Amino acid sequence: MIKYDIRPIGKINTPYKESCRAPRQTIYSRGAEGTIEIYKQYQEGLEGIEQFEHIIILFYFDRTKGYSLTARPPGANSLRGIFATRSPHRPNHIGLSILRLIGVDGNLLTVKDVDMLDGTPIIDIKPYAANLDKK
Amino acid sequence: MIKYDIRPIGKINTPYKESCRAPRQTIYSRGAEGTIEIYKQYQEGLEGIEQFEHIIILFYFDRTKGYSLTARPPGANSLRGIFATRSPHRPNHIGLSILRLIGVDGNLLTVKDVDMLDGTPIIDIKPYAANLDKK
Repeated sequence: MIKYDIRPIGKINTPYKESCRAPRQTIYSRGAEGTIEIYKQYQEGLEGIEQFEHIIILFYFDRTKGYSLTARPPGANSLRGIFATRSPHRPNHIGLSILRLIGVDGNLLTVKDVDMLDGTPIIDIKPYAANLDKK
Repeated sequence: MIKYDIRPIGKINTPYKESCRAPRQTIYSRGAEGTIEIYKQYQEGLEGIEQFEHIIILFYFDRTKGYSLTARPPGANSLRGIFATRSPHRPNHIGLSILRLIGVDGNLLTVKDVDMLDGTPIIDIKPYAANLDKK
């Protein structure tokens, strides 16, 4: 079976040290801030990012073990297919959050409404573009 | 250096056989349709996805070689950091498109406004949620 290698480009520092204390989604974060540290060898890739109000963060659920094809979303009373949920227990452990970018200082990005665990590996950042991403 | 394994959960069939003919973004696709084929072993994960109007597709730019830390976006006259662009030539070759879901038939999803090359590996599908993803 084909597989692809993904390497972290940085990590995010957040107030959440344990998964039981992390919010389930950005909307439950009560405005918590986090700092994304991009590794020095990728810092040039941030040039111009300060012009964007929101950024799409792809990250790796590094503390999730295995996966399930179904999950029960919070508030739902039945199981749903994993691809119809945002659960971390997915075949590829990739998470996505769209965050407000507050500030850029060298290789550090300050973002608002974080929902990741402290130390979560970041695998990509893309600019949020209303004409592509707003539905 | 840490690395993570990502495995395709399916592939997308689109009208674009060559990168020079693929639209640069979903908004330039002129309504082109594509079919996502989820591999049988992951089909159960689609349960309930038909209730969503839009889905977030993560895919792998399997025909992109290497990466660059800067790129010139279409219409721009200067280089920008790769994380401030949607270029495929990124450190991790992951692409993201938010597509309208037209129909579900077993392990096949019909989607609209596709911009991927024919045969592109799909690595994740997440439901689009306005309260999380609309900025």
